[in-house]
Amino acid sequence: MVRVVVLGQGYVASIFALGVERIKKGDLGYYGIPLADELPVKVEDIEIVGSYDVDETKVGVTVYDVVKRYWDNGVPESLRNITIRRGVHLNSLKSMPIKANGLEEKMKLSNCVDKLVDEWKSEKAEVIINVCTTERIKTFSSRDDIEKAIESDDREKLSAAQFYTYAASVYASENNGAVFVNAIPTPIANDPAFVSLAQDSKLVIFGDDGATGATPLTADILAHLGQRNRYVRSIAQFNIGGNMDFLALTDSGRNKSKEVTKSSIVRDILGYETPHYIKPTGFLEPLGDKKFVAMHIEYINFNGAIDEIVVNARINDSPSLAGLLVDLVRLGKIALKRGEWGTVYEVNAFYMKSPGPANSHNMPRILAYEALRKWAGLPAVSKGGTV
Amino acid sequence: MVRVVVLGQGYVASIFALGVERIKKGDLGYYGIPLADELPVKVEDIEIVGSYDVDETKVGVTVYDVVKRYWDNGVPESLRNITIRRGVHLNSLKSMPIKANGLEEKMKLSNCVDKLVDEWKSEKAEVIINVCTTERIKTFSSRDDIEKAIESDDREKLSAAQFYTYAASVYASENNGAVFVNAIPTPIANDPAFVSLAQDSKLVIFGDDGATGATPLTADILAHLGQRNRYVRSIAQFNIGGNMDFLALTDSGRNKSKEVTKSSIVRDILGYETPHYIKPTGFLEPLGDKKFVAMHIEYINFNGAIDEIVVNARINDSPSLAGLLVDLVRLGKIALKRGEWGTVYEVNAFYMKSPGPANSHNMPRILAYEALRKWAGLPAVSKGGTV
Amino acid sequence: MVRVVVLGQGYVASIFALGVERIKKGDLGYYGIPLADELPVKVEDIEIVGSYDVDETKVGVTVYDVVKRYWDNGVPESLRNITIRRGVHLNSLKSMPIKANGLEEKMKLSNCVDKLVDEWKSEKAEVIINVCTTERIKTFSSRDDIEKAIESDDREKLSAAQFYTYAASVYASENNGAVFVNAIPTPIANDPAFVSLAQDSKLVIFGDDGATGATPLTADILAHLGQRNRYVRSIAQFNIGGNMDFLALTDSGRNKSKEVTKSSIVRDILGYETPHYIKPTGFLEPLGDKKFVAMHIEYINFNGAIDEIVVNARINDSPSLAGLLVDLVRLGKIALKRGEWGTVYEVNAFYMKSPGPANSHNMPRILAYEALRKWAGLPAVSKGGTV
Amino acid sequence: MVRVVVLGQGYVASIFALGVERIKKGDLGYYGIPLADELPVKVEDIEIVGSYDVDETKVGVTVYDVVKRYWDNGVPESLRNITIRRGVHLNSLKSMPIKANGLEEKMKLSNCVDKLVDEWKSEKAEVIINVCTTERIKTFSSRDDIEKAIESDDREKLSAAQFYTYAASVYASENNGAVFVNAIPTPIANDPAFVSLAQDSKLVIFGDDGATGATPLTADILAHLGQRNRYVRSIAQFNIGGNMDFLALTDSGRNKSKEVTKSSIVRDILGYETPHYIKPTGFLEPLGDKKFVAMHIEYINFNGAIDEIVVNARINDSPSLAGLLVDLVRLGKIALKRGEWGTVYEVNAFYMKSPGPANSHNMPRILAYEALRKWAGLPAVSKGGTV
Repeated sequence: MVRVVVLGQGYVASIFALGVERIKKGDLGYYGIPLADELPVKVEDIEIVGSYDVDETKVGVTVYDVVKRYWDNGVPESLRNITIRRGVHLNSLKSMPIKANGLEEKMKLSNCVDKLVDEWKSEKAEVIINVCTTERIKTFSSRDDIEKAIESDDREKLSAAQFYTYAASVYASENNGAVFVNAIPTPIANDPAFVSLAQDSKLVIFGDDGATGATPLTADILAHLGQRNRYVRSIAQFNIGGNMDFLALTDSGRNKSKEVTKSSIVRDILGYETPHYIKPTGFLEPLGDKKFVAMHIEYINFNGAIDEIVVNARINDSPSLAGLLVDLVRLGKIALKRGEWGTVYEVNAFYMKSPGPANSHNMPRILAYEALRKWAGLPAVSKGGTV
Repeated sequence: MVRVVVLGQGYVASIFALGVERIKKGDLGYYGIPLADELPVKVEDIEIVGSYDVDETKVGVTVYDVVKRYWDNGVPESLRNITIRRGVHLNSLKSMPIKANGLEEKMKLSNCVDKLVDEWKSEKAEVIINVCTTERIKTFSSRDDIEKAIESDDREKLSAAQFYTYAASVYASENNGAVFVNAIPTPIANDPAFVSLAQDSKLVIFGDDGATGATPLTADILAHLGQRNRYVRSIAQFNIGGNMDFLALTDSGRNKSKEVTKSSIVRDILGYETPHYIKPTGFLEPLGDKKFVAMHIEYINFNGAIDEIVVNARINDSPSLAGLLVDLVRLGKIALKRGEWGTVYEVNAFYMKSPGPANSHNMPRILAYEALRKWAGLPAVSKGGTV
Repeated sequence: MVRVVVLGQGYVASIFALGVERIKKGDLGYYGIPLADELPVKVEDIEIVGSYDVDETKVGVTVYDVVKRYWDNGVPESLRNITIRRGVHLNSLKSMPIKANGLEEKMKLSNCVDKLVDEWKSEKAEVIINVCTTERIKTFSSRDDIEKAIESDDREKLSAAQFYTYAASVYASENNGAVFVNAIPTPIANDPAFVSLAQDSKLVIFGDDGATGATPLTADILAHLGQRNRYVRSIAQFNIGGNMDFLALTDSGRNKSKEVTKSSIVRDILGYETPHYIKPTGFLEPLGDKKFVAMHIEYINFNGAIDEIVVNARINDSPSLAGLLVDLVRLGKIALKRGEWGTVYEVNAFYMKSPGPANSHNMPRILAYEALRKWAGLPAVSKGGTV
Repeated sequence: MVRVVVLGQGYVASIFALGVERIKKGDLGYYGIPLADELPVKVEDIEIVGSYDVDETKVGVTVYDVVKRYWDNGVPESLRNITIRRGVHLNSLKSMPIKANGLEEKMKLSNCVDKLVDEWKSEKAEVIINVCTTERIKTFSSRDDIEKAIESDDREKLSAAQFYTYAASVYASENNGAVFVNAIPTPIANDPAFVSLAQDSKLVIFGDDGATGATPLTADILAHLGQRNRYVRSIAQFNIGGNMDFLALTDSGRNKSKEVTKSSIVRDILGYETPHYIKPTGFLEPLGDKKFVAMHIEYINFNGAIDEIVVNARINDSPSLAGLLVDLVRLGKIALKRGEWGTVYEVNAFYMKSPGPANSHNMPRILAYEALRKWAGLPAVSKGGTV
């Protein structure tokens, strides 16, 4: 079994919970879960034991009730067993049309840590998933600064993701290990201060920013061109959608953090800088969770020929990430058993847009996949051929 | 130096000759040549020493004159030194709007072999590239049948590509080795009879069907989906262009051979059959060498979500293949030096749509690329990361 | 009220019946019906009184049962009242994977006419809609030939559509008028022999080939370019889908008839010939009724600049046509009241790919729309402006 | 003859001058000029007699020299005869990477007016075209305010476009008429204060914002859907390019003015509001003048079916507008002869994104085209059909 706590009961967390329960009931296959049934830890072993949010309409109700808002085609009864608790806010929903209140309004941050650690202990949590709304970027320079911010109750310095990571490290150190999966852009696996803290606290961190949607596809298309030595002249990539995350990204501070993780792939994969425009472009409510992506790539081929590739896609955002979480939770359990404290590049390189640790880079996901399998103890799958 | 003979002085052969000479003159970089300047055999080492065609307007004139028909922006004078000789026809241009006459109209096939072998000897040819027009598919069951067809002068049984491969094997056996690059769909590297003949004749065969255009991109996109366990429901891929190859493919027999090499990737990469429509779709003269590609892929993601990817591209056909030929010629020289007679899967898997030998399969090109580099003695290039 | 008989109870006829009944129940708005609620004859006035097919699994069952095969989201009970009768086959489903038997297997063609006319009389039919499967094209040179074919029981000469038109003319002449809507490519409104027959029989014919999907959109995009004097160099348009009509069109004879109606728009709209490839391209079962369309247009602009437009679309085929039928049925009733026997260009020009009568042409649909409104007695709708 | 003065010698003005001179020399046809050779005023009658700019690298050099920067394929010698004069700046290039100085730095605004009017008199200018860089929007409430701003030398209140319009009105009143074509978004034809001024000054104004690129195509596609009563659920339209105008539009104030003219079409054409995202999206230098456009439209069809249209385009920005200017100049001459002072909706409705006068609206361009032809005294061109 893997005991999972979810931070942020939004669309992604809801589809994650829904899909896992449907699989347990035999209603759904493993599509969209990269490692499907191959891991020793099974999808059916996943147990969601806790859920946190700060949205006043969610705190205190069951996961069943929240999932129902996103899915009207039958929600498994088992989700009635989890009641959503209040998490910390720290302004992460600022400017969003949501009435939000965090634990920190009633107590000091250090008390919030104690409260969460106690709850996680009582639930015997093993893996904590962070799928809160994209935040404005902030980084820490040292572990001391993190601890000082908690002690001095400095609410301006800490984002929700950072606070939760700290709490997870306290929990891990008192619990003989735990896993923190950071699926949003805030640098956690990429912040040396947090990775160092994790190593000493028996915490495994996976992160940052789940590699869904257009970015990993772009990475593989760029790798395709790079391996043929075609010179990419320009890249334009537009994204527009109608879910809360796109609304959050109309805030330019949040958008910036997304743009950074998306743009870093260009240099990492091609090995040179090329003019590009890659960022979430806008919010269009009727598109809902199924975003529209448009991408234009122009490159130079042999004898100076100029070719163009245009990609258009309609991609359901939340199921893409939820499917990856099913693997990350199970890989987390494996890392936990092995005691691989800190962060694991082989996992991050395939699943994350901005794979930690800091100063590691993006690689073509198709290669990252092989490295991941090796790490997970699975056979290579060079389908076809004799290599 | 690598001494190259070209069979079929069409668009591809002309851009190949043009590009190589421009690079020698310093007018052009290595874009579109996958291994660029990394190989011990340099692009500047390539010497085109012979060219063959059956088009009456080409036989007897210089390569310079033919290249000028495709390129009006300055053709290097060095191409005036190669005069196009008459090759064999064997109906390979049947139904095309071209007045064609082959050597076989004046002599027996066995005499044609002798004549070509003599000419190649006098030119000290090392690598023979076949870029003739796509033919209707025919296969041989045994080496005996090939030899019998030549001896009995059976012009119905042999296609031009097959005849040339046989002649190359005779030349190789008398010349202590040679290379035959089959860039068209006729099964040569995939025909066990020819591979066996090659092994005994000191011939290296690379083939079949140069992996340009949409097919390798499709392969990498499918690999991308496969590795995320997204279930592909359907694939539609259209191609339309205005060069001679598209005109040839309006002939349904020729189209069939192309469809086979294009469709085999689906099963090879995904590991399952899925409904697909992948074939050259039509001829539209004004598009010229820059084809238009449209592709639609629909797949199932986590929790049953249905996503779609549409790819549109404008791709210059001939430079794509010509750039690969620059590598294949040089890799051929390496295989020749090593004495790797028969065929080389590691080379074919990256450069060919239908990589020989028979019963080997397509693999994601990004992985094939790594295998290729290893074979060629080049360092791995997992750009980024620590793997 | 408008009493409607449907020939061919396939996807289109089923969505037509379903949509009309849902509107009557108040479950659905008027979207997809061009003239919505503007006509004096209301959508709610439509009464389906008869349905014909030759598919053995459909003859004898109710429309309710057939609609259920295409729609699993609640079918109105009112459709239980119509039982599907056997129509004529005349090989129209030849080579399709359907077990089909027509009335003509048990009686002579002239008796089939009598039988149908009797049934239509008993149902007091006013408008007969032909939505049978696309047939191979055949045309008649004179009215005499039509009548002779019936009398001599010549089953090779007549297609189902032609037979039904003849039967409708007999019915109209004995019934003081009727309407025949030909929504498939067989030339009826474009065959002077049938139009002449209609004029003398008090029959109104609308046809041919309902203007759904990509063709009218292409027409309007071409008109857009034409009016800016941009010279269109080439047009490629691909269509692929998974419904029965796409399967039927894999038959090259049927495809030919479709290609003709699709290609005629190019010259009609632009005023000059330009190279184009416009035809249904293939069958891909998983796409179902929602076809994928890809279109590429290249044109020359001022100062010789070359621009490109690519259109990709996912279009539900059957609802598109069904929505037009809702108007055609009602416009038919209006023509019937006015006694406009023969065919009506103003109606055909907007609703049909190949608007009759013969030698009339396509016009930009946006202009045709204004002409249609005038004919129907509706106010012009130049939205915006003072013109 | 039509004597033309150009304000802003950028890409558009250069292609305009180049194309007109090439046509005069017989090097080029009329493609991209909507009314081609149909008007009584011929393309060959256009004479460019003056050009203004504030870019220090342009003022004082000939149009020939500037055109050469944009076009390296032979510039007509006749363009050596026009030397670019200094115009007014009024901060219109603020924040752009251009060293700019305006006339107003050496004299009062009222003196600038006098200087320009004198120059235009000496050149016998008839039509003045404004193709300056897109400005931040400002509007005037009354004619008095305009005159006061000039008199009081208020440089904050006036944009370059507004200043030039005022100067044109002074020139027209002293010269017995003139024409001002405003091809940028600044409201001139839409500002009642300027239109009133024009009526009393014998000035013809055409404007605002030349209808090139994606917007008129979007309008016609929306009209196509609207006439079939398909309900548009959402519209996303992205534009990215590499010319100076795209760079200018990264300034949010300028972008705003563009967004307004682009968005107004949605309501005007559809007759209802629908969520949309339509604006210039970014600057990507390598795309140059050939912008990339991506558009996604989702709509509801009959029986609730949801269809999607995606349009991707590569469009040369400057030739599109330059081709329209060739008509506007000639239509201006016609209006001048007729004395139609003020503004002309029939012209604006076809050629402008935001057609004046204020409170008039967009109409489908295909209909606007017919209205335009009528105004210009040309026969209707309902190609095809009998209507």
